[in-house]
Amino acid sequence: MASSTSLPISRSLIASSGARSPTPNSSPSAFSLPASFNGLKLSPLLSASRLRAALPCRRPRPSSAIRAAAVETLGAAVADTALVEKSINTIRFLAIDAVEKANSGHPGLPMGCAPMGHILYDEVMRYNPKNPYWFNRDRFVLSAGHGCMLQYALSHLAGYDSVKEEDLKQFRQWGSKTPGHPENFETPGVEVTTGPLGQGVANAVGLALAEKHLAARFNKPDNEIVDHYTYVVLGDGCQMEGIANEACSLAGHWGLGKLIAFYDDNHISIDGDTEIAFTESVDTRFEGLGWHVIWVKNGNTGYDDIRAAIKEAKAVKDKPTLIKITTTIGFGSPNKANSYSVHGSALGAKEVDATRKNLGWPYEPFHVPEDVKKHWSRHIPDGAAYEAEWNAKFAEYEKKYKEEAGELKSIINGELPAGWEKALPTYTPESPADATRNLSQQNLNALAKVIPGLLGGSADLASSNMTLLKMFGDFQKDTPEERNVRFGVREHGMGAICNGIALHSPGLIPYCATFFVFTDYMRAAMRISALCEAGVIYVMTHDSIGLGEDGPTHQPIEHLASFRAMPNILMLRPADGNETAGAYKVAVVDRKRPSVLALSRQKLPQLPGTSIEGVEKGGYIISDNSSGNKPDVILIGTGSELEIAAKAGDELRKEGKAVRVVSFVSWELFDEQTEEYKESVLPKAVTARVSIEAGSTFGWQKIVGSQGKAIGIDRFGASAPAGKIYKEFGITAEAVIAAVKELI
Amino acid sequence: MASSTSLPISRSLIASSGARSPTPNSSPSAFSLPASFNGLKLSPLLSASRLRAALPCRRPRPSSAIRAAAVETLGAAVADTALVEKSINTIRFLAIDAVEKANSGHPGLPMGCAPMGHILYDEVMRYNPKNPYWFNRDRFVLSAGHGCMLQYALSHLAGYDSVKEEDLKQFRQWGSKTPGHPENFETPGVEVTTGPLGQGVANAVGLALAEKHLAARFNKPDNEIVDHYTYVVLGDGCQMEGIANEACSLAGHWGLGKLIAFYDDNHISIDGDTEIAFTESVDTRFEGLGWHVIWVKNGNTGYDDIRAAIKEAKAVKDKPTLIKITTTIGFGSPNKANSYSVHGSALGAKEVDATRKNLGWPYEPFHVPEDVKKHWSRHIPDGAAYEAEWNAKFAEYEKKYKEEAGELKSIINGELPAGWEKALPTYTPESPADATRNLSQQNLNALAKVIPGLLGGSADLASSNMTLLKMFGDFQKDTPEERNVRFGVREHGMGAICNGIALHSPGLIPYCATFFVFTDYMRAAMRISALCEAGVIYVMTHDSIGLGEDGPTHQPIEHLASFRAMPNILMLRPADGNETAGAYKVAVVDRKRPSVLALSRQKLPQLPGTSIEGVEKGGYIISDNSSGNKPDVILIGTGSELEIAAKAGDELRKEGKAVRVVSFVSWELFDEQTEEYKESVLPKAVTARVSIEAGSTFGWQKIVGSQGKAIGIDRFGASAPAGKIYKEFGITAEAVIAAVKELI
Repeated sequence: MASSTSLPISRSLIASSGARSPTPNSSPSAFSLPASFNGLKLSPLLSASRLRAALPCRRPRPSSAIRAAAVETLGAAVADTALVEKSINTIRFLAIDAVEKANSGHPGLPMGCAPMGHILYDEVMRYNPKNPYWFNRDRFVLSAGHGCMLQYALSHLAGYDSVKEEDLKQFRQWGSKTPGHPENFETPGVEVTTGPLGQGVANAVGLALAEKHLAARFNKPDNEIVDHYTYVVLGDGCQMEGIANEACSLAGHWGLGKLIAFYDDNHISIDGDTEIAFTESVDTRFEGLGWHVIWVKNGNTGYDDIRAAIKEAKAVKDKPTLIKITTTIGFGSPNKANSYSVHGSALGAKEVDATRKNLGWPYEPFHVPEDVKKHWSRHIPDGAAYEAEWNAKFAEYEKKYKEEAGELKSIINGELPAGWEKALPTYTPESPADATRNLSQQNLNALAKVIPGLLGGSADLASSNMTLLKMFGDFQKDTPEERNVRFGVREHGMGAICNGIALHSPGLIPYCATFFVFTDYMRAAMRISALCEAGVIYVMTHDSIGLGEDGPTHQPIEHLASFRAMPNILMLRPADGNETAGAYKVAVVDRKRPSVLALSRQKLPQLPGTSIEGVEKGGYIISDNSSGNKPDVILIGTGSELEIAAKAGDELRKEGKAVRVVSFVSWELFDEQTEEYKESVLPKAVTARVSIEAGSTFGWQKIVGSQGKAIGIDRFGASAPAGKIYKEFGITAEAVIAAVKELI
Repeated sequence: MASSTSLPISRSLIASSGARSPTPNSSPSAFSLPASFNGLKLSPLLSASRLRAALPCRRPRPSSAIRAAAVETLGAAVADTALVEKSINTIRFLAIDAVEKANSGHPGLPMGCAPMGHILYDEVMRYNPKNPYWFNRDRFVLSAGHGCMLQYALSHLAGYDSVKEEDLKQFRQWGSKTPGHPENFETPGVEVTTGPLGQGVANAVGLALAEKHLAARFNKPDNEIVDHYTYVVLGDGCQMEGIANEACSLAGHWGLGKLIAFYDDNHISIDGDTEIAFTESVDTRFEGLGWHVIWVKNGNTGYDDIRAAIKEAKAVKDKPTLIKITTTIGFGSPNKANSYSVHGSALGAKEVDATRKNLGWPYEPFHVPEDVKKHWSRHIPDGAAYEAEWNAKFAEYEKKYKEEAGELKSIINGELPAGWEKALPTYTPESPADATRNLSQQNLNALAKVIPGLLGGSADLASSNMTLLKMFGDFQKDTPEERNVRFGVREHGMGAICNGIALHSPGLIPYCATFFVFTDYMRAAMRISALCEAGVIYVMTHDSIGLGEDGPTHQPIEHLASFRAMPNILMLRPADGNETAGAYKVAVVDRKRPSVLALSRQKLPQLPGTSIEGVEKGGYIISDNSSGNKPDVILIGTGSELEIAAKAGDELRKEGKAVRVVSFVSWELFDEQTEEYKESVLPKAVTARVSIEAGSTFGWQKIVGSQGKAIGIDRFGASAPAGKIYKEFGITAEAVIAAVKELI
């Protein structure tokens, strides 16, 4: 795998770190830290004015001054090499010991990546361990999430409250803060949720996109209020995944210069040497993707080479950088290093002893030597100083740029502007019939005017998905302040990038779009949205056989069911304008749960009885001629088939039947209603129920009951005009009426 | 996008086609053609011995001789340029006219790719239009499937019975042979099902893998019985998809020299110029992936350049070749060429007229000029001759290499060896407890001994998925005769490659493996397996929270439901050894339906009452102390939870209850049983039913009924030892017993 390409890969890795003197012991901070995780809420003890006195914007306190310089020069503040190595071995043994205690986990990566990890967390990154959510922090993503003990060990040394010694000892145990893979919703300090390979690097692209976008929108010549890097560590596994190529192609296209990726080139994956399946030249591929590529040949002990590579990466401002770092997996283990056996299992007591001997590590498990502890202790005051300095800077910004500051604040806080929902369009039965994909565009454009953090786009189907924000241009390398993101035909990367955007700042609301059937391409990223509580809005058009001639490869069948079965995701299938507005209202409000909007390609009428409020309840009555909550039959439809249910209801009423028609736009929301409300819509006593939906009937028995009938499609679609397919497949009012007549 | 890389991209495109004389009119074949689609079944009129007389192996009939030479020299048999251009315009207008008539479809690609299409189908490829399934045919894949009118037009000209003029006129209509995207199950001559981008090129990698594997296994120095190329046309959209990069990385790794890909570099995708989202250097990336790259700068009229590129590609035997062909989308349309508007909509009557004028096309819609028709007519006799020649060759082969011929024949025919199922291992309750992933490996290894076409592997989890065939080595560039395929961490590519393998020959039975949760990465390929009737076996281990510490990113929850909802795929979740054997039996037999086997990481006991025959019915009784088909309660479990159901049953019986325990290993198979059988297992009268499964309860109401109780997991998993999670989540015998006590 070592590339022998003739490409001009940068190798200018001569150490240029200058004099390395031990960091002066930072004195404990003289002021207490804000308890809040919100970078904007200044504690009374740390007000902006006080800070300016204690910490003049341009001249931070000594330790910060040194740290700031270190960030620039990579070398001025680093510890002596002996202490660096001791720190690196501390990281290694914390990982070894935690995996050993759990008898489960992946020691190999932390042992190999400890040097780059140390340099990043100790010498390069700006963060505040006591406020992991400080807005302007550098972001770190461990895309090779199985090596999470690396991040836990680093977070522990850096002083994050989420990873104390007892947390390390509870690695991979029930209820711990140190689960088997990094999970942002469990462990403050972890930015995103990784483990499924390739997701993390794509998340990192999203984080870097968010930074570039916000910087372009809000930075001023005299105040660069948005200014951080995104670092990501990925391994051979991530590199093999297609999603990584998709996201990295976009990162190159967008010129995300503040994205710096460390490719842990250790030649080992679970099946053994990467020679058996992965012999491409990653360097050449990344050159092709438009990245700056650097190779650090000795990632095990070439500390200065790592530092120089980071320096070089920062100097390249118009391209993301891939630093390929050749390391030894399981470095230090005399018998298991450089083999797959150290990848995903505890070393075992004997090999742990051998490794202790080999690396000269006399300490008990989980021990952090005093000098290492002391050295790292400065990150708490330094982090506080960074945040305080930034808070002061923000106060200046707010004074001078009131409007922008307000917008930025709402993006940082995630507070929606008061009355935003008034922007949602409303419709009457007299409003023209339209496809819900078009109605969706009306909503998106209405919302973009009032929600500063709304941005997104489509996977090369903008004109089909109807997702363009008309008042904005394209987010591109040279116009990053714009909000229409062009993802190309890269659904999987798109989803994961949106996860990164959503997790960058609570007020960023990314949406992304493709045909509903192609959620299959991005399902892994969508599941992570649900798991990691990223409120991405998935705008999924062409949601049934109603798309017509493109045929079964393009017609979703089982997709509604497949998302209804997924935890913590809202599946919404609006039937018309009011319901589409309702779906957007729900999606925008629910910032910790992604929403999938299934939208029609075909025109649909504006139905009487639909409403935003109805959608918020998930299922509700749109028409009813029964009394006493005792209809003869309940007809239930979703999306484009609600019209059919309504028509069938009208027909049956003409025949004297008492018919209730229910829109079942979101099963999840309905499930969350009170039993009383549910009974008011679907009374248990009424077992004559017919549902109609142009998709799999799987799951509908829960709604229609054992005695009801679910009309749907339990086969693949077909290529023909939509009306013809509906008829041939029996998705018609006639079929509903026939089913009702069998029941009552 | 035009690469300015300094890479040594081959550009040696000087026309070397020699004298171009019109093809002599081939006289009609003197013998009738085999009606069968099976390359081995010789019609009585075309027996091997007769053929040898009529068509000596080394000296085929005149037109074939010329064609054979043409394949080698690319030029000797081509028509004069005027006729070539007329043929190319015929292809363009067949596409234009069909899309116009349907008022739906994608004319742009066929118009731009007609030149390469003509050269491939008329000058390069060996196929038999009257037997689209002739084994040794060259394979053609249109990965940019939306341009399917290109393939339909070519198939029509070449004489395939599946695409007659009336079929072209029925483009995209109900029940036609010319659906909106290429579908192998609808249109003989179409190899695979494409449309969802990137799938086709990955299928092509599978087809080329199959050829390389079979050639290595069966070719002899004196008889190269397996010898064909795989051609694929892919566009910008395919290139952006991660799956394409995954598959092409593997193709480079495996050195698939007979895979030749045409990259239709037309700079236009649906959203407009590719500049907005796709500015990487594809050439450089493919160099990095280990491909030979050629750039044909004029794909519109540079016929000789295209020919030379193909010749060069064939000369490079150790690498796949990417021929980047710069074309104009919608070539010939004066107002719409080179724009997105020609990509996916009919041109409209006015522009069709303008295009007719512009290209000098005086004919009525769907007209094929006589000289073009005549020119193409030779493909019917030539195709027959190719097949006959090959049949003769096979007869020779069979005489000399009887055993190999038998194996190859079974791979070509898809006939399983008699008694193969006797190889399946059997178990008794006394057999040791084991994880079903391990039992799966016993089955795979037993089957590999008796099924010559079984091959496959894992996405870098072979040692976790337990998928290695112990008697074989690794399929690699230099050992392609082996059967363990190392896919690397490329689930999506793996699935689509397996689709290609399965569709290469009916007797090839590919299996592939990863953790069950990572089906999310490959779902689009799995759906195509189901749609295109590729009997791939998906070996999916670590199928629940039972995997333990890796946590929620790795624990499937909704996955069983999501596949149960998908049409034409078998979801199987065996509980022990006998059920795992049963699952393999079903999966191997069902060659037109893929199977997903969900297998445990954790040890499971061999349960009394399980059987292969039971699995074949999908749901069956494993124990029962009731009489008269009237148990007090029915307990239903799948996979690892069947043990829990059995335990709860035992407890309840001790308390005097009449309890039936049912294994519900495959819902689809149970659905296919008679009503009588279903009633014998789940009598309607018994409404006290409790199911238990460590996954989403979504869908279970169908089985347990409105009055039953489904025990499952409707949240994400957790990181902890498996036993702890089971307990915390209430997936226990105690929970089953408690539920029963609420019901009866």
